[in-house]
Order: sequence, then C-alpha cells, then structure tokens
Amino acid sequence: MGAIDDLLGNNARFIESFDGNSASVVPAKKVVVLTCMDSRLDPVSVLGLTPGDAHVLRNAGGIASDDAIRSIMLSQRRLGTTSIMVVHHTNCGMLDLDEQREKDAIEADTGIRPSFALEGFADLEADVIQTVARLEASPFIPHKGDIRGFVYEVDTGRVREVTG
Amino acid sequence: MGAIDDLLGNNARFIESFDGNSASVVPAKKVVVLTCMDSRLDPVSVLGLTPGDAHVLRNAGGIASDDAIRSIMLSQRRLGTTSIMVVHHTNCGMLDLDEQREKDAIEADTGIRPSFALEGFADLEADVIQTVARLEASPFIPHKGDIRGFVYEVDTGRVREVTG
Repeated sequence: MGAIDDLLGNNARFIESFDGNSASVVPAKKVVVLTCMDSRLDPVSVLGLTPGDAHVLRNAGGIASDDAIRSIMLSQRRLGTTSIMVVHHTNCGMLDLDEQREKDAIEADTGIRPSFALEGFADLEADVIQTVARLEASPFIPHKGDIRGFVYEVDTGRVREVTG
Repeated sequence: MGAIDDLLGNNARFIESFDGNSASVVPAKKVVVLTCMDSRLDPVSVLGLTPGDAHVLRNAGGIASDDAIRSIMLSQRRLGTTSIMVVHHTNCGMLDLDEQREKDAIEADTGIRPSFALEGFADLEADVIQTVARLEASPFIPHKGDIRGFVYEVDTGRVREVTG
C-alpha cells in the first residue's frame, strides 16, 4: 500500500458521508484564489470556502504564470468570476530559490536546461505586489477591478493584506 | 463588503480555532495532487488530506502545463515528493472548450490572440491518460515510478482510477 492508496482509502470514507453536490459549476462568490501548492496551506479551510464558492489555482509559489493567466481568463470569460485573490505565504519553499543555480543543477542532472522560467523570490510582500501587477497587466483578464494580494502566515493562520 | 471581504471574515473565524502548525514544509505523504480549479472539487476533503500531507496543484482542467511540470519538478527535487496523482473530474468546464473558437473570441474581444495553448478535451478518461503520459515524458520530473490518473465524480464524490 503506497501513499496514493492511503488517499483512495480516505476517499472511500469520504463517499460514505457525501450528500451530493448541488452547487453550480459557476462559482457563487465569483472569486478566483491564486495560491501556493504548499501542503500546510489549505485555502478551503483558511478562507472558509464551501463547495461551489470559488475557483482555486495553485502552483509552486502562487505565481502569475502563463498557466495561471490562462486559468483566470477561462474562469472569468466562461464561468463568470470577477475577483482575484493572490495569497502567498510565509516560509515558502520559493523564498530561497536561485533561478540560475537551480537551472545549473537541473542541467547537470538531466542534460537539459529548462527553457521555462524558474523564478524564486527574496521578498514575500514585494512578490505579492509583483504578482498582482502582472495580473493587472495581462490583456487576457477582462475583470481587473478587484485584484487584491495577501500573505498567509503559516504560524498564525492569518491572511493579511499587502498593499503597494 | 465584497466577496473577498467575506472570505477575510471567514479567515478571522478560522484563526480563533487555529492551533498552530507543526507540519514540515516537506509533505509527509510525498505526494503531489494535480487537479482542476473547479469550485466543487475540494481535494483536501475528497482525499482526506491533513495539513502537511501533500502538495496540491490546481489549474483549469488539471492539465500537465509547463507550470505544472515546473511545480512538480520543484516539489520532487527540493521537497522530496515521489508520487503524482492526476485527478480530473466529471462535468468539467474544459470538456466543451474549442481551442480555435476560444482564441478567435479572445482576439475579437481584446485584439490579441493568445500565444499559449488553450486545449480543451472531449474525452475525460483519454485526457487523464494523456496527462499522465505527458508527465512521464518530461525530462524534468525525476521520480516517475508512481504516477497514476483518476476521475473525480462530482455527483458521487468518488475518485476512480483510469488505466490506459
């Protein structure tokens, strides 16, 4: 039994108390949350989301990648969301990532240097502001009137706003 | 009070019962879950994840984008995960997406045609298999011995495996 089988066992228990899902595919709160993949950050519990409330995007760092922009664009254009909440967090694994050193290591290990970006960030608040600015600059995001940036404090559970 | 303020209100209540977080930044189950942004799919409850268990990646469709591959690569290389669980779902907003028609509409609305891919998929199971195959083909993912694909059934809560 591996870890994935453990999670499937959890799902079998989840089904027992599952009482159906009447929520619409259109998020009720019209919000997209863009955040990190970090295992200690559960946006659903931290923000009190219920099924059907919001789209949740997660990648390493919670960055405004092309893929995040693609996803937000589809969320807004096809499924009616209008607000974006960027949530980075303390003690993030991206805080000490050096792009060139990481690419050097990958090239040494695999023989192939990634052509895609591997940005890290040194300043958490500055990166939240940068991420919001990148979303605001995208021509593909129709609704930009309510984009706000936050830091989740892993130690306190608090989501605090970052303003530029 | 907008929707984001509602979620911040939820966070204020979340903090009241928050009892700290002793979990390591290294996911205990060494699993990455790659899934969709859909608001009705909460991977934490569906798979019974507890804080610190697994990295969770989410984008529109749960696809193997460059950004997902970047994130999985960092998860495995820097934070020790070794298993990947791909979870797509029934009633996905990507199931009726026509790439060329969508790009035509975006170009008509904004004057700019996205240079990035906007794949949809017609067959859910086939796309799970394709997503797993793309991860297996990436030179940047070191651990490929435990990559498995699943469909989450929105109506039943069940996560069922898709095998090629």
